Amino acid sequence: MDLLEVFALDELSHGLANLSMFPYFEMAHYIVSIMALREQPGAQDVSRVSPIACWFSSMLYCFGGAVLSGIMLAEPPVAPLSNSTSVLLASVTWYLVFYCPMDLVYCCAALWPLRLLLSAMKEVTRTWKVLGGVTQAHGKYKDGLLVMIAIGWARGAGGGLISNFEQLVRGVWKPETNELLKMSYPTKITLIGAVLFALQQTHYLPLKKHHLMLIYTIFTVANKSRMMLTGSSTSPFTSIESAIYKTLFAGHSPYAVLTGEITPSCIENVASNRKSTSSSSVKESKQNGSAEQRAANGESSSLKDKEE
Amino acid sequence: MDLLEVFALDELSHGLANLSMFPYFEMAHYIVSIMALREQPGAQDVSRVSPIACWFSSMLYCFGGAVLSGIMLAEPPVAPLSNSTSVLLASVTWYLVFYCPMDLVYCCAALWPLRLLLSAMKEVTRTWKVLGGVTQAHGKYKDGLLVMIAIGWARGAGGGLISNFEQLVRGVWKPETNELLKMSYPTKITLIGAVLFALQQTHYLPLKKHHLMLIYTIFTVANKSRMMLTGSSTSPFTSIESAIYKTLFAGHSPYAVLTGEITPSCIENVASNRKSTSSSSVKESKQNGSAEQRAANGESSSLKDKEE
Amino acid sequence: MDLLEVFALDELSHGLANLSMFPYFEMAHYIVSIMALREQPGAQDVSRVSPIACWFSSMLYCFGGAVLSGIMLAEPPVAPLSNSTSVLLASVTWYLVFYCPMDLVYCCAALWPLRLLLSAMKEVTRTWKVLGGVTQAHGKYKDGLLVMIAIGWARGAGGGLISNFEQLVRGVWKPETNELLKMSYPTKITLIGAVLFALQQTHYLPLKKHHLMLIYTIFTVANKSRMMLTGSSTSPFTSIESAIYKTLFAGHSPYAVLTGEITPSCIENVASNRKSTSSSSVKESKQNGSAEQRAANGESSSLKDKEE
Repeated sequence: MDLLEVFALDELSHGLANLSMFPYFEMAHYIVSIMALREQPGAQDVSRVSPIACWFSSMLYCFGGAVLSGIMLAEPPVAPLSNSTSVLLASVTWYLVFYCPMDLVYCCAALWPLRLLLSAMKEVTRTWKVLGGVTQAHGKYKDGLLVMIAIGWARGAGGGLISNFEQLVRGVWKPETNELLKMSYPTKITLIGAVLFALQQTHYLPLKKHHLMLIYTIFTVANKSRMMLTGSSTSPFTSIESAIYKTLFAGHSPYAVLTGEITPSCIENVASNRKSTSSSSVKESKQNGSAEQRAANGESSSLKDKEE
Repeated sequence: MDLLEVFALDELSHGLANLSMFPYFEMAHYIVSIMALREQPGAQDVSRVSPIACWFSSMLYCFGGAVLSGIMLAEPPVAPLSNSTSVLLASVTWYLVFYCPMDLVYCCAALWPLRLLLSAMKEVTRTWKVLGGVTQAHGKYKDGLLVMIAIGWARGAGGGLISNFEQLVRGVWKPETNELLKMSYPTKITLIGAVLFALQQTHYLPLKKHHLMLIYTIFTVANKSRMMLTGSSTSPFTSIESAIYKTLFAGHSPYAVLTGEITPSCIENVASNRKSTSSSSVKESKQNGSAEQRAANGESSSLKDKEE
Repeated sequence: MDLLEVFALDELSHGLANLSMFPYFEMAHYIVSIMALREQPGAQDVSRVSPIACWFSSMLYCFGGAVLSGIMLAEPPVAPLSNSTSVLLASVTWYLVFYCPMDLVYCCAALWPLRLLLSAMKEVTRTWKVLGGVTQAHGKYKDGLLVMIAIGWARGAGGGLISNFEQLVRGVWKPETNELLKMSYPTKITLIGAVLFALQQTHYLPLKKHHLMLIYTIFTVANKSRMMLTGSSTSPFTSIESAIYKTLFAGHSPYAVLTGEITPSCIENVASNRKSTSSSSVKESKQNGSAEQRAANGESSSLKDKEE
């Protein structure tokens, strides 16, 4: 990457690649994640009714990615618990965010300049988590590109992908909505990251690892900051997405079918499918899904909430 | 098996045993499975709202058995993703069935002579999947007959057994019904197959493997074709089942208890159990369960649907 | 432990440690667990509608701990099936409890002197299960204290912790309540046991293993018998719990917040959280949770039920 070297970003990228996530960035990740949990409807009642369920829920917010990727690779999902230091750090954070006298910790961290900083630091950890997942998968499946993408995605956006089951711990069950039906911004950006790092790992992408880390980190941090400052929840991919969608998935619309060039049997099927139970729930998820899911993957959304 | 040799079926059985499932039979399995998904209520709406959820759901229909048996044996459930060719084939099928312009692919495949052929070919793959599961389990648990049956069953009927969670991906949640509460024909036939192949593996069944494969395959294919042609959903085991049920499980009916030879405490229990929440839902599942579950395990049921 | 030796309990503790759970104590565990299942609302209807779902549910009651700890340590959850003798024993118990002519077995076992004995014997198996889990975890994670606690807990109280999914097998779905939101007595006592045995394993607790086994077993058995005889469901930890709760988790109550020493933004959050969907469901679980959960972890509660 001569371009990068011209701008003397090579040292910077090396410096970033050697940056240690522990303890400061890890800490920021825990604080932002647990604050996002606390802002979930009903989370505070759960913290009163059952501190243990609340603690377990918080751990899923903090270590959900490791748990999910562990299950997917048949490695012990309890492994995160074996890292006592991280668990202790996360538990202290959980306690301070939920039960601190006068609620000082939450209120300070919720002040937006600090929250902006913490969220930006959390975004940095995303790069390390996705890369970690891709490397872990590469160790087991040498040329399993799809596996690398899946594990990298799971590791980076685990908290969101298992949100249905995390909610179940708190006695909430929203089957009509999940991260696959209505992807939130962090899930999308993590998926893109997983694809990029998997391509880099398999040398389809002609980039040095530390350069990609720098580029991806800058992009995520900049984008997250923009969204928090402008309070807009519009992802930068909306245009690309709709373009892809129109090209690939709008080819045959059920209404086109009704113009009737094709066999009646077919129309019956489509028609019978249109008046269906889950269609309504899916539409419903379009409305209420986005809000609770944006938060559901360890993302701060209080600034946006204020706008809405 | 002299009887078989008399009829010179030995070569035939050898030929069948050496038959390769890839690509044609695999392909048929993918097409029939994904068409069954598309015929689920609301599946088409999901395919519009979120192609990714739709793709993931389709993969669970195609590789559900491998995923489930992987989890049960603590082997990576992402393993199917590492077989790029199969995933690519399944993904292309998924795209063509759901998004093909003018819906041509679905409508052609839905024409019943073709569908009959495809369903018959899919039945053939069942033999290989069940046998694969039994062999896999035998490798880990030498004399674990029950484990072999469980894994063979899971591998062969996985899509159906995990249907609750597959539906959850699409935002549908039907807790009141599952494949264990109301077994569909394919689940039953797979269970029988798993028992037979497990008995053969442990030499309790005095049959050569390739002979059993021939007999089981012929039975499943013939039976499936009969059901599609006659449009009847009556399984051939109904009489045997009801006989077994009457002998073993109707011994003590709650009404017999009320004749009161036994302690009141007992009647209380039974009575309190009778007016229960889940009883209603179970009865409900009797009504709506059969239809959506027959489809829920990658089986074509459009012909039957027309009858009903 | 000179104190114990003074009372010549050393031999006794050695004798207990060498006691074999199979077959009598195992048997008692199966009987009590399956009777608890049968006393679940709707369980009898399920046993009529689908013996297989009923059998699977019973196995989860009997082997739930092994299944859960297996999943958590990435060991095959089907492993319990490989122990044919135990499965056979449990299956015979299941058949006799649910389908015995004239319902003789259930009615005899429900007579309270016998039930008291069986429940006491079941409590003894708890010690062995918790210890087994802790040892199993210690083999994988030498100094993972938290992992040992988690696995010991899962192994000892597995049936209760997975109750949501066990119920799903029977077509029942109660998301608003689970063992973490509203812990039942057996789950609590198992958690305490797991902590003690994990501390002993890591030598933080200066006790010989067989002494701890004796003390813990006596405590659980005595306590269980007391609860069944007095028919009271009050756990002996209520006072300690409320003390801990008051000290640690009542520090900042949402009402204290409203006195308004802190930033408005904060009050908004708390307020918005208070009027929430899941809060209601959580409160609901406070009411109906305790009853169905006390039973949901393989515990006899018929005597208590009579009191209530």
